Amino acid sequence: MATATLTISSKNYSSWSLRGFLLCRLAGLDIAEARVSAEDPSIRAELLLQSSSFLVPRLDHDGLRIWDTLAIGEYLHELKPEARLLPTDRAARAHCRSIAGEMHSGFANLRSALPMNIKARHPGFKVWTGAQGDILRIVTIWTGCLKAYGGPYLFGAAPTLADAMYAPVCSRFTTYDVPLDPASRAYCRTILALPAMKEWTAAALAEPDELEELDVEF
Amino acid sequence: MATATLTISSKNYSSWSLRGFLLCRLAGLDIAEARVSAEDPSIRAELLLQSSSFLVPRLDHDGLRIWDTLAIGEYLHELKPEARLLPTDRAARAHCRSIAGEMHSGFANLRSALPMNIKARHPGFKVWTGAQGDILRIVTIWTGCLKAYGGPYLFGAAPTLADAMYAPVCSRFTTYDVPLDPASRAYCRTILALPAMKEWTAAALAEPDELEELDVEF
Repeated sequence: MATATLTISSKNYSSWSLRGFLLCRLAGLDIAEARVSAEDPSIRAELLLQSSSFLVPRLDHDGLRIWDTLAIGEYLHELKPEARLLPTDRAARAHCRSIAGEMHSGFANLRSALPMNIKARHPGFKVWTGAQGDILRIVTIWTGCLKAYGGPYLFGAAPTLADAMYAPVCSRFTTYDVPLDPASRAYCRTILALPAMKEWTAAALAEPDELEELDVEF
Repeated sequence: MATATLTISSKNYSSWSLRGFLLCRLAGLDIAEARVSAEDPSIRAELLLQSSSFLVPRLDHDGLRIWDTLAIGEYLHELKPEARLLPTDRAARAHCRSIAGEMHSGFANLRSALPMNIKARHPGFKVWTGAQGDILRIVTIWTGCLKAYGGPYLFGAAPTLADAMYAPVCSRFTTYDVPLDPASRAYCRTILALPAMKEWTAAALAEPDELEELDVEF
């Protein structure tokens, strides 16, 4: 029986939900999934990229309720230190938190221009200038880490908090056919091949489309 | 001699710089300040609320470079556990990280509608509906914490990471004359009276206006 419940929104559209799910899987925490309805006004706002504050994903465990992705990551790191969600080396750990935090608070242009949409494919998608800056910065972060720590994950041989934070970007780069250097392309393949990522992707593909159900016009 | 350098941008406008500064002061870390010029394109973008990713504040310490506010908070907590930037109680610590994370990734409406501007006063400022939702959510967080942990800070008798994260909001609520319940008003007074907050505020008031120097038209 699951000892914890992870509340998520859409598997196809919610990059934050995906991050929370990956963190639980990487930590080896047995979770039951709960779903907030796409008809819930706050979730509808999130799916339509109109949300200003996020209360999903939410982890309920051991009487505690934790509703921010980084807070969930730090909690799981305390709970399951053996999973090494954060690097054991102090300098690498500070670096890992810096790039995880940068993704957490930033990249607004990427979010609005290239929203996560696992089901979609847009070959030759034209990326506007603002989002190009975000892509360039992400590639700089990735290639720097892969070189410094030896890959195939951002901080070496095993995935960490940082990989969970950037995983939705790998999905976006695939959806929007973003041209990448070989190292970044290999990194995306590595992330998309993670068992937890494949599990999430398969579930997303099998689901009805929440935005269609909302009868949203694009 | 300072053992660390904190790189900041504007004292009047940069809420992220203020948070980093408060964290260093709360942790008791002796810092030298460095300033990135308002003419730097990335800083200009931050001041004009056009930035998508933030590399300031940045802490350089002991050969490490840490450039995200939450990463700085977690680093300082590891470095100076006696400062209790995070609550010692596990449940309170998870709660503290949840609301710190919510501020870190969210409240975009508040940021754009009520940007930090320590020097300004706008009595009777009309807040648009989107930002009202953010204000309501922040007041709910504050009053919930003050009741649960007894105040005067969000997690009890001493300030934590969460207070540093919400401190710029106290400044904003003053600048834009936001009507508040008595408990939230008292909390703002408590934060604005912190020695480190008074030190920062005095320095902000004494400085020339960076946006005027940029010759920006509003």
